[in-house]
Amino acid sequence: MKQIKTMAESKCFDGNQYVLSHNSISCACEMTFGLYLPEAPSSTKLPLIWFLSGLTCTHENAMVKSGIQKWASEKKVAIVFPDTSPRGDEVSDDSSFDLGQGAGFYVNSLRSPWKKNYQMWSYILEELPELIFKSFEIDQEKQSIMGHSMGGLGALNMAFRNPQTFKAVSAFAPIANPTAGVWGRKQFEAYLGPDEKCWEEYDPSILLSKKGYVGKILIDQGSKDNFFDNLSPKSLEKLVSATNEDNLFRYQEGYDHSYFFVSTFIQEHIFWHEKQLRG
Amino acid sequence: MKQIKTMAESKCFDGNQYVLSHNSISCACEMTFGLYLPEAPSSTKLPLIWFLSGLTCTHENAMVKSGIQKWASEKKVAIVFPDTSPRGDEVSDDSSFDLGQGAGFYVNSLRSPWKKNYQMWSYILEELPELIFKSFEIDQEKQSIMGHSMGGLGALNMAFRNPQTFKAVSAFAPIANPTAGVWGRKQFEAYLGPDEKCWEEYDPSILLSKKGYVGKILIDQGSKDNFFDNLSPKSLEKLVSATNEDNLFRYQEGYDHSYFFVSTFIQEHIFWHEKQLRG
Repeated sequence: MKQIKTMAESKCFDGNQYVLSHNSISCACEMTFGLYLPEAPSSTKLPLIWFLSGLTCTHENAMVKSGIQKWASEKKVAIVFPDTSPRGDEVSDDSSFDLGQGAGFYVNSLRSPWKKNYQMWSYILEELPELIFKSFEIDQEKQSIMGHSMGGLGALNMAFRNPQTFKAVSAFAPIANPTAGVWGRKQFEAYLGPDEKCWEEYDPSILLSKKGYVGKILIDQGSKDNFFDNLSPKSLEKLVSATNEDNLFRYQEGYDHSYFFVSTFIQEHIFWHEKQLRG
Repeated sequence: MKQIKTMAESKCFDGNQYVLSHNSISCACEMTFGLYLPEAPSSTKLPLIWFLSGLTCTHENAMVKSGIQKWASEKKVAIVFPDTSPRGDEVSDDSSFDLGQGAGFYVNSLRSPWKKNYQMWSYILEELPELIFKSFEIDQEKQSIMGHSMGGLGALNMAFRNPQTFKAVSAFAPIANPTAGVWGRKQFEAYLGPDEKCWEEYDPSILLSKKGYVGKILIDQGSKDNFFDNLSPKSLEKLVSATNEDNLFRYQEGYDHSYFFVSTFIQEHIFWHEKQLRG
């Protein structure tokens, strides 16, 4: 019933990079995800870091472009790379790159035609973890989350609303204040409807200012990001700095929005996550 | 006239990853290539490592998938990523993935319709270096070459026939004996014609057995390579082992043909190249 199909398996460093797929109930379609498992004694349960990707990405981008596996292998942590939306000919889509397939924004849609499949919040917080914990030796008590761009938005929202699940969150160039930006308002209107009150549950700046976060935060933002204005980083920058001095929102001089930026700092992020998870 | 256009520029580690293009005389078309330059004092001329890619690849694959920049940055070496063939609507092509665009095999074609554009041997050995040395601070006396699959073939051939230019050569899963394999015979027939004598200049196993190589050789071949038989590694393995004990042809247990394999060993290759170039 909840069977995982192995689409691909490649040895990478001392572990294996899997591409897996399954029939998702939340998204009402077949969903593909990547999973990197470093070599570990069979008695060991590995910590798990979630990597959520950005607009236009699939499960594949971070898996092939970030260089994350070397550090996951070194620190003995598992990494899961979910897709960014439901997929398939039967799934609603839009002709623009920032709505529909490849642009799920990690929300549970409330509106037709999106709500039938666009339930990425539940998919990533409930269905996918259940499947992974059943199938692999993962320590449920040691999870953290990270993401890039739209995936940074998803990671921050999931961590801030589920501090008991995610002990730490990091992001590269996250969409930081979507209710105020062009990346956010358009999609929230489509997926959630005109009542802006519903949007606030998916805005990391609003969530952090209202509820705070007991976990740890690390955010890197390139100063030459080609989408700087769409990301609205300023409000979140101030809020993160006001939480506690261990939490960091850093501008990285000269870097853009690409995976060349992500790959530059991914080692530091993975080492940071591992420290938060194992202590 | 020989002007370089900057298509993209991204800060990556302490340096810059460029995507550049220029009007190629050898290939009679616009050609794109990647160039990674680590930060270096302006008085320094950097060693240069050539990375030739495999079938279906462009200049982009190794640049985004191998994780090479971290090590190039650390060791202060420049990396150039040429395209794998001439490109464009005006350039002859074939419906199969292993002939025509994306499959230049790094030869100078002798036959119509290919010979008009498919002059990758001259392009990479003459035109592109001239352009690069004119435009960037590169030490012409410190060059080595590497490649993956079809690019491993190109790298080995270029090194074995130009030991004065390339002090060292390394390869991941190279096409090792193309005159005897399905990856080779088809393309050599098309690009070079039926006279098999002409093919021998592009077969690393034949070149090494006839002339030897005064430089250093490092080859990694995954034991679970999905194209193992097409690569014909056995003859080259024996020849490399017979050269001298410093040269290595290694089978890497469990690895396939993908960039997950390449990325696992790229650090070791770059460190090895840098040692041959500076050490």
